Formats: sequence, C-alpha cells, structure tokens
Amino acid sequence: MKIGLDAMGGDYAPEAAVLGAIEALEQIGDDTRITLFGDEARITEILSREGCPASSFDIVPTTEVIEMGDHPAQAFTKKSDSSIVVGFQHLKEDKIQGFASAGSTGAMMVGSSMVIKQIEGVIRPTICTVVPTDSGRESVLLDVGLNVDCKPDVLYQYGLIGSIYAKAVLGVDRPRVALLNIGEEPEKGNLATKAAYELMKETEEFYFVGNVEGNHLFDQEIADVIVCDGFVGNVVLKEVEGFYGLMVKHGISSPFIRALNYEEIGGTPVLGINSTVIIGHGCSTPKAIRNMILQTEEAVKSGVVTKFKEAFN
Amino acid sequence: MKIGLDAMGGDYAPEAAVLGAIEALEQIGDDTRITLFGDEARITEILSREGCPASSFDIVPTTEVIEMGDHPAQAFTKKSDSSIVVGFQHLKEDKIQGFASAGSTGAMMVGSSMVIKQIEGVIRPTICTVVPTDSGRESVLLDVGLNVDCKPDVLYQYGLIGSIYAKAVLGVDRPRVALLNIGEEPEKGNLATKAAYELMKETEEFYFVGNVEGNHLFDQEIADVIVCDGFVGNVVLKEVEGFYGLMVKHGISSPFIRALNYEEIGGTPVLGINSTVIIGHGCSTPKAIRNMILQTEEAVKSGVVTKFKEAFN
Repeated sequence: MKIGLDAMGGDYAPEAAVLGAIEALEQIGDDTRITLFGDEARITEILSREGCPASSFDIVPTTEVIEMGDHPAQAFTKKSDSSIVVGFQHLKEDKIQGFASAGSTGAMMVGSSMVIKQIEGVIRPTICTVVPTDSGRESVLLDVGLNVDCKPDVLYQYGLIGSIYAKAVLGVDRPRVALLNIGEEPEKGNLATKAAYELMKETEEFYFVGNVEGNHLFDQEIADVIVCDGFVGNVVLKEVEGFYGLMVKHGISSPFIRALNYEEIGGTPVLGINSTVIIGHGCSTPKAIRNMILQTEEAVKSGVVTKFKEAFN
Repeated sequence: MKIGLDAMGGDYAPEAAVLGAIEALEQIGDDTRITLFGDEARITEILSREGCPASSFDIVPTTEVIEMGDHPAQAFTKKSDSSIVVGFQHLKEDKIQGFASAGSTGAMMVGSSMVIKQIEGVIRPTICTVVPTDSGRESVLLDVGLNVDCKPDVLYQYGLIGSIYAKAVLGVDRPRVALLNIGEEPEKGNLATKAAYELMKETEEFYFVGNVEGNHLFDQEIADVIVCDGFVGNVVLKEVEGFYGLMVKHGISSPFIRALNYEEIGGTPVLGINSTVIIGHGCSTPKAIRNMILQTEEAVKSGVVTKFKEAFN
C-alpha cells in the first residue's frame, strides 16, 4: 500500500511534515510505503540532515504550494503543480491509496469533491473526528464543520456513515449511534433533529440508541457515534480545544486530558468519498503528522471506503 | 425588597430550599426579605430544627406542588395553589420583586410568558447563563436552550439583551458582544449566523465585536457576551457540565474548574420579561439555592428589567 503525504502542508512545512513521516516509518507496516509530495530539494535536505536515506520514501517533486490565503477552488486550477493537486491526481489514479495533508483545508475539500468525488447515493460527504472518552475508548463525532444547516436525511446518512466508520476503523462491534440533542426525549430538539429522530428511530441500517445530550460527549455511556449538524459539531470540537488549552496553560494533566490533544487525535477523515483523504491541523507537529499517516494507513487497511460503497449502492 | 423562593422546587425540596434560604440570610441586604412559598408546616419544622426563627422569613402557605412529570401548562391551570403559581401571582402583583425556583422549568417558563409576559418589542424572551472564564471574570452566554431555530432578528435582539444584562448585572462597562460561529470571518456560518452578522455589524445598540469560535468560550479574550441559538447554547453548556463532572470524578481541581460547578453559577435568569425570574437546577443543593437567591437580589437591585423596557420601547 502507498500512503501519500503532502510534505508542503501545514504551518511548519516541510520541516514538520518530513520529520513526521520519518517518525511514522518505524510504525507503518512492512508493505506500506509513504509517498512525499513537495519540494524535492528541501525534502532530501531534511532527510539527509536527519540521517534518513531518501530511498525510505517515494518522492514526487512538485513546484507549487497552495497557501492558506489562496482561494481553494481557484488555487486548485491555477496551481496545477502544487503538492495537493498532484497528490489528488495520484490518489485518483490509485498510485497512492490514501492522501493526508495539514495544508489548506479548503483545497483538500475541493480535491475530495471535484477529483475523488462523493460516493453515489451519499447526499453530502462529511468530516468526522474521533473523540477520546473517559472509558479510554474512542467515539466518532460527525459532522464537525463541513456541512451546516443539515437536512434530516443528511443527518440520517451521517448515522450510517459514522456507524460504518466506527465498525471498520475503530473496531466497534455494533456501534451505538446517537443524535446530539437538547433533551433525551424523542420530541426534544430543533426542526432538523426532531425530523432526523423520526427517520432514525426504526432504521435497520444502524443501531440507533436515541438522543444524547452534551454532557455525555466524553463518557461513552450512551454512544459510540454521535451525529450532529456541522455547525454544532464544530462548536463542540472547538470547545474541547479550548478546555484542553486551558488545562495545559494551568499545568493540569491526566490521561483523559492528554488524549484531548489534537496531536494524539490525528487528522480529520473526509467520509463518503471514493478514496481515503485525511486533513490535519494547520499547526501540526511531527507527532501529529506521524499519527495522521498511521491513521491514513489504518483507514486504507480497514477497507472502509469499500464498505461505504456497498452500503450506499 | 422582597425575593420569592419556591420552597417546594427541586429534587431535595423543601429541605435544600429552606436550608439555602437560611444560608442566604447572612448575605442578603438589610432591606431584603425572603418570601418562602410552600408547605408551611414542613418549612417551619426545618426552620425550627435549624434554630432559625420563623420570623426571619415571610411564609406564604401553599398546598400543591407542580411535579417534574406534570405537563407544565396544564399543571399551571390545575394546581392553582401550587408554590410556583402562587409565587408568580405575588410577582405579578409586585408583592415580591423577584422569584426563584429549582422546580419545574416548564412551569417556570409558563409563568414567565403567561403571567409576567414578555416586554413589548422583545420577539422571544431568552435564558442565559453566566460562564466563568479563565480571567476570573464572567461572560454571558445566551440563549442556552429556550429557543431553537432562532431567526436572525432574534439573535440580534439577544445581542442587545445580553449587553444590557452584562452591563447592569455583571458591571461590565462596555460589553463586547460576539456571535458564536464556526469561523472568525463574516462570511462563515450557517444561514442564521450569516444573516445575524449582517444585522449586527453596524449596530449602535451594542458593541458588536464579530464572530467567536468555540475555543474562546472560556478565555474572555474576545467577548463578554456570546450570542447563539438555543440548541447550540444548550449543547455548549451541557458539554461544560460533562467536562466538569469528569474532572470531579478524577479528583482534578483548579479555581477555573471549581467555577464551572453549577452550584457556583447559580440559576438561569429568564430575560426579556416584565420582572425578575430565575430558574435553578433541579438537583440544587442548599449552596446552589443560596447563590440563586443572591443572584435574584442582585438582578432586582440592578434594575435590569427597567433597562430592558427602556431599550425595547
């Protein structure tokens, strides 16, 4: 298997990206190779400095970089020799089986939807995050910011997508899917969640356990998969980041608090598209990049994309 | 001034309510009296056991209690001699100037809207909470669960209501009002926040500082007042509760974490109505009741209701 990494993506690229890739070498499978997309001279310079043979990686030289300030869709067209555009081309041609980047989220989404395209039957692709819980197990939260003003049928599909992901990637046998809401009772909620509840309550496509409130996000008492609108999911996720930052600031730590660190969580998978794409935090450190590569490998190995295709066809 | 307390409200009533009222006696102003609504025999029994003279309070005997399981609107009509219904009657007649209860939230909302009524010009009354921040100062978050699917003009009014509240009750000189959103840029958000931003951006009614993301809820770097839809606000608030619960469970503490305790925060004021109403947590302890009484006194003293009326007329 080949995993592609955008070596030019992220605030500390290519330094952090290449160092992360080197760290990942120790942990990836024997049959996995990492392909680095980016400025070949700078990449080989870092590798040489670190005493890492350039032959440890496949390197695809690119000459351009999509910057954070670029308009994602325009940059995708104009910067045709950028690491992200070339990476997506390789992904589309199956030269790599998964692609990860800590670069422009917008450009990664353009590539996901325009080059890789959504799976037939999926109304809206989504992005999820894996939330650490107090039990030590992880749960899946989606959507965390891609789609706002989600219609009930979109929320319903997120239940199915999250369930397939939790089963395939996290190894949860029969994932409990809950709808994030403002009360446990079926009649609680806003227009979208009330209608989504009605769609979910008797489904046989996934194991729906009802509504979950915000106070149970981290205890996994209720759910393995938590479905919400992207506006809500984004606020919830950033609230976690805010907590974590305060705890770090005050020197408060625990296994649970450390698990809230985005570096540990890795990247954000794009789900419902025809391949494996993972988007990292712009400020990714080498450790975060390493985890994102391992996460990409795991997702490819799990065959989750094929499982999505089977479910929606 | 007279502050009314529903002595029958809350999971541990009347015990916790009466004990909380006794605790509050030490801290309320010399010119403030507390009126207890409830079962006179049980109230006086607790007072006597605690060695507190019954004359320390005004007691209004009532014979019924609206239970959590009762339908709020129906119970309000049927249980006309309940502590909540009688309390609202006294509030309406200005026999008390503020009313607090840890009882049925639904019944408290029925009383607020049907007996006290919203201030003319207010589209939707709201409930807010005071969020502790890392700076030690507090900020106001609204709406925290009363109104979902808020229209942009409702969000706009929440900016004004929150600003008046922060100034009058929290003593913030020129409250910075922000819109909770999923990006800082004006064009970010869902349909409602994008439109609300447009309404707020050039207002002179309050000091709008733009969007705030979920990671800045607790640091007060950006805002003193944070406006959001009630669905989002409720999830955000319960996420805090969940986080606090985990910290307690693991014996992790700090001044900031302790400040997240609902007992410290007190109750939830209903804003935009013609008097002062505060709703407490069902599981309120004596300490939480005491803080809710002090909060009610503070709100009445601040004249915030008059300030709302002036702003909306």
